[in-house]
Formats: sequence, structure tokens, C-alpha cells
Amino acid sequence: MDDATGRHFLQIPGPSNVPDEVLRAMSAPTVDHRGPGFSALMSGLLRDLPPVFGTTGPVVVYPSSGTGAWEAALVNTLSPGDRVLCSETGHFSTLWSEMADRLGLDAEVLPGDWRRGADPDRLAEVLAADTGHRVKAVCVVHNETSTGVVSRIPDVRRAIDAAGHPALLLVDTISSLGSVDYRHDEWGVDVTVSCSQKGLMLPPGLAFNAIGPKALEASRTARTARSYWDWAPMLEANARGFTPYTPATNLLYGLREALRILNAEGLPAVFARHDRYGRAVRAAVRAWGLEVLCADEREYSGVLTGVLVPEGHDADHVRKVILDRYDMSLGAGLGRLAGRVFRIGHLGHTNDLTIAGALAGVQMGLGHAGITAAGDGLAAALKLLDEH
Amino acid sequence: MDDATGRHFLQIPGPSNVPDEVLRAMSAPTVDHRGPGFSALMSGLLRDLPPVFGTTGPVVVYPSSGTGAWEAALVNTLSPGDRVLCSETGHFSTLWSEMADRLGLDAEVLPGDWRRGADPDRLAEVLAADTGHRVKAVCVVHNETSTGVVSRIPDVRRAIDAAGHPALLLVDTISSLGSVDYRHDEWGVDVTVSCSQKGLMLPPGLAFNAIGPKALEASRTARTARSYWDWAPMLEANARGFTPYTPATNLLYGLREALRILNAEGLPAVFARHDRYGRAVRAAVRAWGLEVLCADEREYSGVLTGVLVPEGHDADHVRKVILDRYDMSLGAGLGRLAGRVFRIGHLGHTNDLTIAGALAGVQMGLGHAGITAAGDGLAAALKLLDEH
Amino acid sequence: MDDATGRHFLQIPGPSNVPDEVLRAMSAPTVDHRGPGFSALMSGLLRDLPPVFGTTGPVVVYPSSGTGAWEAALVNTLSPGDRVLCSETGHFSTLWSEMADRLGLDAEVLPGDWRRGADPDRLAEVLAADTGHRVKAVCVVHNETSTGVVSRIPDVRRAIDAAGHPALLLVDTISSLGSVDYRHDEWGVDVTVSCSQKGLMLPPGLAFNAIGPKALEASRTARTARSYWDWAPMLEANARGFTPYTPATNLLYGLREALRILNAEGLPAVFARHDRYGRAVRAAVRAWGLEVLCADEREYSGVLTGVLVPEGHDADHVRKVILDRYDMSLGAGLGRLAGRVFRIGHLGHTNDLTIAGALAGVQMGLGHAGITAAGDGLAAALKLLDEH
Amino acid sequence: MDDATGRHFLQIPGPSNVPDEVLRAMSAPTVDHRGPGFSALMSGLLRDLPPVFGTTGPVVVYPSSGTGAWEAALVNTLSPGDRVLCSETGHFSTLWSEMADRLGLDAEVLPGDWRRGADPDRLAEVLAADTGHRVKAVCVVHNETSTGVVSRIPDVRRAIDAAGHPALLLVDTISSLGSVDYRHDEWGVDVTVSCSQKGLMLPPGLAFNAIGPKALEASRTARTARSYWDWAPMLEANARGFTPYTPATNLLYGLREALRILNAEGLPAVFARHDRYGRAVRAAVRAWGLEVLCADEREYSGVLTGVLVPEGHDADHVRKVILDRYDMSLGAGLGRLAGRVFRIGHLGHTNDLTIAGALAGVQMGLGHAGITAAGDGLAAALKLLDEH
Repeated sequence: MDDATGRHFLQIPGPSNVPDEVLRAMSAPTVDHRGPGFSALMSGLLRDLPPVFGTTGPVVVYPSSGTGAWEAALVNTLSPGDRVLCSETGHFSTLWSEMADRLGLDAEVLPGDWRRGADPDRLAEVLAADTGHRVKAVCVVHNETSTGVVSRIPDVRRAIDAAGHPALLLVDTISSLGSVDYRHDEWGVDVTVSCSQKGLMLPPGLAFNAIGPKALEASRTARTARSYWDWAPMLEANARGFTPYTPATNLLYGLREALRILNAEGLPAVFARHDRYGRAVRAAVRAWGLEVLCADEREYSGVLTGVLVPEGHDADHVRKVILDRYDMSLGAGLGRLAGRVFRIGHLGHTNDLTIAGALAGVQMGLGHAGITAAGDGLAAALKLLDEH
Repeated sequence: MDDATGRHFLQIPGPSNVPDEVLRAMSAPTVDHRGPGFSALMSGLLRDLPPVFGTTGPVVVYPSSGTGAWEAALVNTLSPGDRVLCSETGHFSTLWSEMADRLGLDAEVLPGDWRRGADPDRLAEVLAADTGHRVKAVCVVHNETSTGVVSRIPDVRRAIDAAGHPALLLVDTISSLGSVDYRHDEWGVDVTVSCSQKGLMLPPGLAFNAIGPKALEASRTARTARSYWDWAPMLEANARGFTPYTPATNLLYGLREALRILNAEGLPAVFARHDRYGRAVRAAVRAWGLEVLCADEREYSGVLTGVLVPEGHDADHVRKVILDRYDMSLGAGLGRLAGRVFRIGHLGHTNDLTIAGALAGVQMGLGHAGITAAGDGLAAALKLLDEH
Repeated sequence: MDDATGRHFLQIPGPSNVPDEVLRAMSAPTVDHRGPGFSALMSGLLRDLPPVFGTTGPVVVYPSSGTGAWEAALVNTLSPGDRVLCSETGHFSTLWSEMADRLGLDAEVLPGDWRRGADPDRLAEVLAADTGHRVKAVCVVHNETSTGVVSRIPDVRRAIDAAGHPALLLVDTISSLGSVDYRHDEWGVDVTVSCSQKGLMLPPGLAFNAIGPKALEASRTARTARSYWDWAPMLEANARGFTPYTPATNLLYGLREALRILNAEGLPAVFARHDRYGRAVRAAVRAWGLEVLCADEREYSGVLTGVLVPEGHDADHVRKVILDRYDMSLGAGLGRLAGRVFRIGHLGHTNDLTIAGALAGVQMGLGHAGITAAGDGLAAALKLLDEH
Repeated sequence: MDDATGRHFLQIPGPSNVPDEVLRAMSAPTVDHRGPGFSALMSGLLRDLPPVFGTTGPVVVYPSSGTGAWEAALVNTLSPGDRVLCSETGHFSTLWSEMADRLGLDAEVLPGDWRRGADPDRLAEVLAADTGHRVKAVCVVHNETSTGVVSRIPDVRRAIDAAGHPALLLVDTISSLGSVDYRHDEWGVDVTVSCSQKGLMLPPGLAFNAIGPKALEASRTARTARSYWDWAPMLEANARGFTPYTPATNLLYGLREALRILNAEGLPAVFARHDRYGRAVRAAVRAWGLEVLCADEREYSGVLTGVLVPEGHDADHVRKVILDRYDMSLGAGLGRLAGRVFRIGHLGHTNDLTIAGALAGVQMGLGHAGITAAGDGLAAALKLLDEH
């Protein structure tokens, strides 16, 4: 945007850095979306995309922001007044539950402290108590982007099953897909929500629903009014390699290239790399004497790390100092965490030296923002990176 | 997509050819959509975009296909069961009315023959008869992309006013914006629907609503459930140069460049150029002895020309021959026009010699498809182009 | 460069239109030219490039304009005072012979009328008379870019052989390589000179020498001072996939992609396509009542067509009218043909409809420049194109 | 080139990182280099480029590697047998003197130890002894890319003047231009040699000669045979915004953008930034207990730092470990320094956090290559960076 020298350090938890190859792929001329060339492109994507979700079922692609995929998951499976049970894990789980209310559903929020993932035990209790099965869906955010906490989806599934409850399980993988291990089929998820601009290393503009058989069944009778988000015409057109309305063609070019890059590295290697970055960044945070927001070590995130600033300091001031001095963007504290937290993104198209550079910037920036570090966080992170 | 030599001739009525400058602009790195750089970009767009609609009011930008902007116009202004009066002008007006029904509205369709625009007299009659004001909105497609017919919006407005009817006027300018003269404010339109991939010369992925004051007022009480498309949070965030959810950043880069290009030529010159192309193409069609689909000369389109193939011929065969032999894409006949019509797009980033090349391809292709041309349409078109 | 709408029609005989894929390939980040990644790239190019020249011997690549490859051919094989016999075929053959003089050689020019290729009979006579073998090299331009005439290299070879003369045969394929059939080995050429911006569909900036065994032998004793152009360090470094000084890396990325595109079409198909365009354009020229510059039908060019304007007209005025009105660049008459000739390029990454559009522009432009066409050249060209 | 994740760290002393804006500018379509659009581009460059050299005189631009600009400086100003006095400062000064010999000149080398710049006192002695003025030119490399030593050009000038010697002063600024303060006019340089791929932040493929009045005068009588490199036709064509042969058009697009970026930062700020990076990197090297190759603190380079590895270690092994583990390219030791030195580039389009990341990689890599660091070099560098 401006003329700062060198590459901007984009260390927010998404949009993440888009590989040059993807940007170049996206700059191919737009083609006729009703012609044979498009059909071949789309069919290839619909074949290559589901494995990233860990599913053999269909994935639909919307030209929209990820927020649209939340809406799609709700309106396709639920009817006005249906109760949805939402685990509060942070700002985004809250937005999703508020959306449910706005769409005419009845969102029941299981409160959380924004430092932990969805609580399977509490979910099990509420569902067990719901003997009339008023709850039609459970909504959980896999990697809560506002906090850096990963909910344990298999445990959530077990909780629902333990309660013998028929509710659908809707999971938001907006910031985890392609970065954190995720298994739509194996974990028994009914709808997985995701988007383009995080682990898939694309600009924003595409959103996804992976659709399980129970969800598909539910969509046949769900009565929430819907048109743009309706799965039925999407699935029908997709079967022929087309879409029911004009697709975001150039982003689809980018998606093809991004999938190629992801598969060249291999998903297990991608996940391991993110995990390693998470550990390195947390090592730095602790060496600085600061607190990692995520309070449960089973729920650490390889995608981003939320960092609490000490009492009396303003996290947004830290971010501004770092942006101005080092041309690095960090994520802000959102909602109730505003000013108290900054977030370091370490996802997608990145590598050890970029992480090192980013941590150098945080370390120097903390000092300039008046937060005296207890120790050399960068050295702690390098030590961890170096062990691998 | 493939390795045909030379540039593909993309002569569909959108997506249109994207200028290289726009593609290059779109390949800049994605930035933090919550940072100051983004805010400056977005604020500039929100300042420069309304004049293209002929409005001084707000325009909201969705990361979505144009179809989403149809939905947004309906769900923001109407309540379940509201009647909307839809002038049938072709495939797209039909899809819009069907969408209204799916969204819980009550679409009343004023039938049309797909060769003429909205009939202001008939609209006036129906509205005059609607003494109880059950009709809450009138939906008209400005440039019907499936036929190449331009509805006369000022006459539609006069018809509503003549009936003294309070219905909102919602107008689809999907394929006319930035190509055909259009004046949201002056013509008294309440919501204008549009998108990126036609006259704005961008890839698909952005959709727009220009919002008049009466529509904004209506949105405060409209009860259709909405979230993604809701104007309120959009307008609130836009005021600060931001968006309520992640925007399609790279398309916005392209939009900035596209607006620069449009303004460099000047909108009146852009409109005149399209008008001239329309006349040249119709001259060719007539010289070939074929029939232009648009039946009313007041409603000719500068964006595309629908061409009827003679009885006993298949328009899709013509298109296939032309695609295979000359690497040119033409638009198919849609809906009830399938096989009977092909459509020649002549919009956006194009010029005289490209139009000449395209008509050469159609002329040669007609012969190969077994349709003997009465005369030299290309020569007729060049004669017209040459007079200017 | 400017903001004309639509794509510029670049119908000069090079630089030719660069495919988007090539431009995108060129925009990859520059790498370390001493690292393993570069070596793999370069080795691949050195394997794939010789077949385009019709040789199994080495081809060296200079970061330079094609003019540099002329100089390289001379300084590597000749010694100060050596006589070179240059067939005058037009502006470029003249420049080459002048270069030879400037480099300390003794250029003897076989005069020509700029409407025919090299005269094998005359060459044979001169060489036969050169019993002392003072002539060390014969320089011929294959496709003379200033006229659109293709010299018959096999006949030139036969003339040299018939004279039993040991002179080297140096051939300029600047504007023919990758467009017109050419066979370095089979035709017994000793050095072939070429460059990137014509049939290879790249921007300017790379130049080539294909080196036959006799030329390589000569280079070992040739005494013209040389460094940048010296084959020896080039060949030595190339053997390891490297270059003796920094290469034009990003153009090499483009070359890889261009070779892929050429091979996807297949060289014989590429040659046939150019031949066909040449015939179509000449048909147009004749139908307009104008004269094709090339006077010998055995020497017509598939790359460009030189067109003589009638007495009393200025070809540069025609070109200016066409550039201003139709945003199309044509080639100027060069040297003694200035003002008398314009040149239509029809090479490289192009197709039937682009050729049609270009001819439409010439046809309309002639009229506006006050040259009344005898007939419809465009129709004549389409007729020819349509027969295939 | 490959699919390593994240951006490659290109920390060689050139080619340097090309800004995305420059790569995008370069991917515009190639235009007619004889048309008005090109003339406007070229004239602008010829106006904006000389200030970067610190001259108001002409700068000529070659489509070639920087090595070509060495040759151009020699062949335009000197005659066969002319003596040139070359200060040996490293691998590149040696290559230049060898080139002089190959071009028929008589290179006298003032030996150096590859750790210091040109010795003004020694130059003065030799020139004073050259009472017959056999020496026609003094060749000095400003920033010796193989060592990271900056010769003191003003002192060299004073040495020549003190000796009252008429020799021309030819200076190579290949790796200093646009990174280290340089003043062609003020320092009395006669020819300045440079190229595109270092401080000018472009890919390789352009080379430059800034020409002082005395050199221009010399070129009128110099008898070395020349054609491609000849200044005369270049200057003549440049006066009209053109070139005597086809220019590397797309690199010129990039040059325009690169000059815009340089001027947006401002040359003094650019020089200060490089100086600061040099100090930070040297601080790191010393903290590691290693030796900086440059032995004279007046001659430190802001462009690159040569680092001596301890006895018994192989610098190329260090580089390989770092490339394999951290996807970072460092410069090799060249010529007599092979295996003993690695070079860290810190020039051009870079910033603090990238330098930090690069030093993190070197630090970790040293350990993996078996070189135990005395201390935390990265911390030392950050301390220095942080003070500014």
C-alpha cells in the first residue's frame, strides 16, 4: 500500500501471506464460467478440496467472505426458532451465535472465559438435560481466531454422542483449515465452515461448507428462507463442474495453485510446521515474562498466539509502535479483549526466518512501548526452532 | 486455460475482459483489513464508487457474486409475505423473482416476451389497481443480460409515480453499470443492484447496493431475517473505512484501478462507445439476414446483442463451432431462449478492432455452422464504425 | 502505456505480443544465479532451446538485444581485416554489414533491391572468383524484418558449396526463429543469430548464437578482441548450468514458459500458422490494390508483410492515422523505404480473429489516410483464412 | 523455483530482492519501441536516472548484464595497447582487469590483499612515476562485491590530481549505486559503470554508463573497435527518446517504478539505511567471534559483509547448511576467497525484521555447521538496530 522498504510483515491471524505463485495464478484472464475450460477447473477443485477437510463428501464454494459460510451452515440446516447451542470461545463464536439470533434462530450460549475451548463436559450436561431435543445444532469454533485456542472437536463429538443427542455439529474451521489437523468425516462433523484467506493462503473472497450426510438430509426439510446460500442448486450445478451463479473465477485459479502448494508440502508436514511455530512463539512469550492467552495446553494453537499485556499497558499501543517502527501488522484484541491482548499470527506461507524476524520485531517493539521484557524471547524461540 | 495461440476472444456479456492493469493491481499482497492502509483504500472507494451509480448516497460493497446483491436488496427492504412486482424481461428477471419467492416474499410477475423491456404502462395499471398498496417493491432489470434489452427506468419511475404508489423501485444494473447511462438519484431508484465483472471490468467477486433514502428508511423496519447482507453494520463500519467482516481485499485493489480507468475515459465517452458498438453489431446482424432479439429500438443495448438463429438451426452449435475454430466465447441462449439465441458481448475493456475481429469470427462461424449469411455483416459494421 | 480502452493491437514485426503466461512467469522473484535452483533452470533451457534452431549443437544465451548476437557471431569467428560477404536484403542486412566494418572487418556487400532475398547465384559467382579465399564468412539475413522477404538459406549453402569455398555461413534468424521453418544443422549453417522478442514471444533482452562445429573451431583462432561475447567462458559455464556473468534471470523464466507454449502447439503447426497468416495478409493487400514489397513468391514471409503505398502518399501518415484512430502499431518503412512502406506484423502469439481485427484497422485507416482501396481486402483475407 | 514454504531469504549481494511493484510493472505488455509511448517512457528515464549517479551528464542504458558496462567503459574511451591501471580489490576488480587485457588493452594491476579498497597513495606513486602518461585510465571498483569493501573514490581522484596525471577515472558502482553515497560529478569520475540488479532493485538485464565530459571527448578518438557498446549512436538516439537497437522494454518499465520507489524514500535515507544494516551485521559477526573481511573501518560496506570462517571450516558448507535448513541464500567466497568467506547481502528492498530473520538464520546455521558462536550475534545486531 505504501512505500515502506522491504516486505511488510503480515503477522495477523489472517488474511495470511499469499504466495507469489498464487497471486500470479489469480492474474490469469477471467474465462467464460459457462464454458468447458471453467468446467474442467471447477471439477478439479471439487475433487481436490474435500481431502483438505478430511471428507469424502461434498464441499461447496461460495463467492463470499467466511462469514457467509457461517450463514450458509445455519440457513441450510435449520428452521426458524430452532435452538442452537453455541460454545462461547471468544469474539468469533460470539458473532456466530449473534448471527444465529439475527437469522431467526434461538441461540443458547454456553459461557466461556475466552481462554479455553468449548467445554465438552458442559456441552454433554446441557444436551443430556435437553430431553425434548429442542437443540437442533451445536456450533463450535475449532480454532478461535480471537484467542488462539483450539477446541477439541473429537471430545465435543463424544459429548454429543454420550448424551445420545441428535443435534447437528457445526464447526467453524475458518482459521484452522489447512493449518491444524482436522477430520470432518472421522470426527463426525455435520457441517464444516471455512474460507480462503488463512491456511489456504489465498486472498479473502471464497467460503466453504463441507456437508455431511446428516446435514444434507436436514437441508431437505429445513425451512429457513434461503437462496444465495442454498446448497441444493450449488450441488446440482457442481455435479457438472458449474455453479448456479457467477463464481469468483480468479480466486478459483488461486485456489488450484494453493492446493498444489499445500499438497506438495503434504498436510501432515503443514500441521507439524504450524505446531512447531506455535511452540516457538509461546517460548518467546514466556521468556519475555508475558502470559499466553490460551489457558489449557491441550488447546494451544499453531495458527496464532494471543498475548496478554501487563496491567496498565495498552496492547493497541504496542501494535501501533510495532507497525510504525517495523512495518509489521499484529492482530488486535477483539471484543472484550480489546487493548488487553495482541495476537501474533504464524500461519500459512511462512518459514523459520520470517518467524524469527517477526519475534525480533515484537521484542524490540515491547521495549519501545515501555514493556520491559524479562528475558530474550527471541533466543528462546530460536532455541526451540533449532532443536527440530 | 489452454494453450490456444493468441488472446482468447471473450465476447460474452460478462465477465468481460479485465484490463491488464487491473489484474496487476489485484496481485498486490493482501493487507491487514483492520489497519490504516486498508481504511484509506476503502474510504477512497466509497467516495469514488457512488458517482458511477449516479448517486450521492451510500453504496455498499459485498464480497459476493452479483446474485448476492439481488438478495441484499430484497432482504434489507422487505418483510416476509411482502408482494414484489417483477417485470419479466428475460432469464435474469425470472431468476430474481424466483429468488424473492424463495426468500419468503410474494413475487407477482408481469409477463413479458423476452424481447422487450419492462412495460411502464402495464406497471402503471397494476399499481393503480393495487389500491391497498400490497405491492411493496417493483423489481426491474435495467439491461437484461439474457436478451440485450434495456428497460427504460425513467418511464418505470413515472409509471409508479403516476399511480401514486409508494412501492420501492429496485433496479438490477448488473450488466449495465459503467456501460449504459444510469442515474440512481435522478431517476428516483431506491436500490440499485450491481456487480464487478461487467462494465466495471473486474473479475467476479464483488457486488453492490446503492441505497436511496427511502430504501434506507424501509430497512429500519423490514423484518426479513438477515445478517451477511445487512446494510446497517456495513454502513456503520464503512463510515470508518472498514467492513463488518473480511472484505475481498485484492478485488478492491482492482476496483480502485478500474475506477481510475473508467474516469480517465470519462463516463459519457464510455457510454457513447458502448452505444456505438451496439449499433455496429446490429448492423452486422441485419446484413447477415438475421434477427436482433431486442424488438424495440428504444431499448437496444450497447452491452450485448442477442441474435436469433433461423428455424432449424441450433444456436449452441454455432457457438461451439466458433469456440472450437476461432477461440471465441459467445453467450448462450438462456432459459426459454436456449438453442434459439446466441449473444454477442461488446462491453467493457474493448475497442473497434476487437469488435471487428469478433464479428469476423461470427461471420465465418455462421458459414461453418451451415447458416448462409445474406450479406457481409462485417463490412456493414465497419462502415458504421468508420463513420464516427 | 496510456489508457486507451481495450488491448493495443501490436502488429509490428516484433517485439511481438507476449503471452500472459510468459509475463506472469517473468514476474517470479529473481533467484541466486549461483545456486542449485538456477542451475536446474538453465540446464533445462540449454536442453530445450537447440531444437528450436534445428540443431543438436550448443546455443549460447546473452543478456542483450539481438544486435549483440550479430556482434557475437562476428567477433568469435573472425579476425581483424577478414572479409565478410554480406547479401544486401534490406535495412537490417545493411546494419549488420556496417557493424562488421565498425568491428574492424572488411564487409563486401552484394547489392540488392530490398525486395528480394540473398541471391545464391550471385553469391556463387563472387565466391568462385575468390580463389584466394579472402572471404571468411557469408552473412545472410533469413527473414529480413525491414521488408518481409525470406532468403533461401539452403540455396545459399549450395552456392557456397558449389564454389568449393570454405567461408563460414552466418545467418540472422532474428525475426524468423520460431515462426518460419529453420534448420541450422541440416542446412549447414555455422552460426545462427537470434533473439527473444519475435517468434519466441518474449520481451526483448535475450540474444542467441547457435554454434556449429566449424564455427567453434574458428573461434579458437579468431583474433578479434572479445570478452562479453566470448563463447569460450559461456560454453564452459553453461556445461554446469551457469553463466560467466549475471544472466537476465527473469527473462529466462519467461523463456522456459515460451518454449513450453511453442512445443505445446508444435513447431510444424506454428510454421503452418504463420504461413497461412502471410497468405491472408497478402490477399488483403492485393484486394486493396496495393503492392506487396516482396517481389519473389518463393520468398514470401509468414512473419510480416511489407506494403508499398501508392506514389504521392506517405506510409508514416497511414501509420499515424491508424495508431491514433485504432490504437494499432504497424511497422515503419526503414532506411531507404522510409515513408514508402508500412509493415504488418503477423507473428507469434496471435490468432485468426486478431489478424482479422488488424486488417480491419488497416482497411479503415487507408481510407482515412486518403488511399482509396480497390476492394475489400478484409473479405479476401477472411476467405483465405476460412478455407483452412 | 521450488515449493519451500514462505518467502526465500535472498541475502546475496545481488541480484537483490525485487519489490512486487517492480515485478508487476515489468509485466505490462511490451510496446512498439519506435512509437510515441516508448519515447515518453525513455525520455523520462533518461531524465530521472542521472541524479542517482550524482551527475547532470548523460547516462546510457544497455540491454545487458553489468559486465557489459565494464566493456562499454573501456572500448569507448581507450585504444588498443593503452595501459589501464587497475586497483586490485577483489574478484571483480580482477575480472575487470582481465577483461581489459582480453580487449587488447594493457592492464597493470596494483596488487591488493582483498581486504582493503584501492590504495590512493600507491596509485599516486605509480601515476607520478608514469611521466610519459602511458596510463590512460585508472579502474577502481567502488563497492567490491566479492569482499564488502568500499574504495574511497574522492581520495583516488585526489591521488590522480596530485600526480597531475591526465588518466581517466573509471569507477564500477555495480553493487553500490542506489545503496552507498556516490557522486559522479562532484568526485570527478569520468565513467561510472553500473547495472540494474543491486541497489536499483531490478532483475538483471540492464547496464549503465554515466559519461563525464572528458570521457566523451576521449570516445571521439578512441580506436578500440566497437559497435554494440558504442556511445555515439546511443546518445544520438536517446536525444529523441529512442535507442539504436531494441531496448529491454519490460525492464525499463521496472526501472521507472524502481526510481519512483527510491525517490519516495529519498537517496540520503536509502544510504543511511544501508549504513545502519552494515553496522548491525558487523556487530553480529563480531559477537559470534568471527572476523569481518573488510580490514579498514573507513571502507566498511552498507551493501554486504564478508565473513571469514575459522580455520578448518568450509564457508561453502556453512552456506549449504543454511540454504537447506533455512531456505536462505548467502554469497559464496569468490576466487581466492572460495571456501574461506561467506557474504551476507543487506541491500536494496529490505527492512529491519528481514535483516533480523537473516541473522537468525546465520546464527543457527553456524551452529549446525559446527562453528560455535562466541555470543549472541543476533542480540548484538538488534541492540544496534534498536538504537536508531
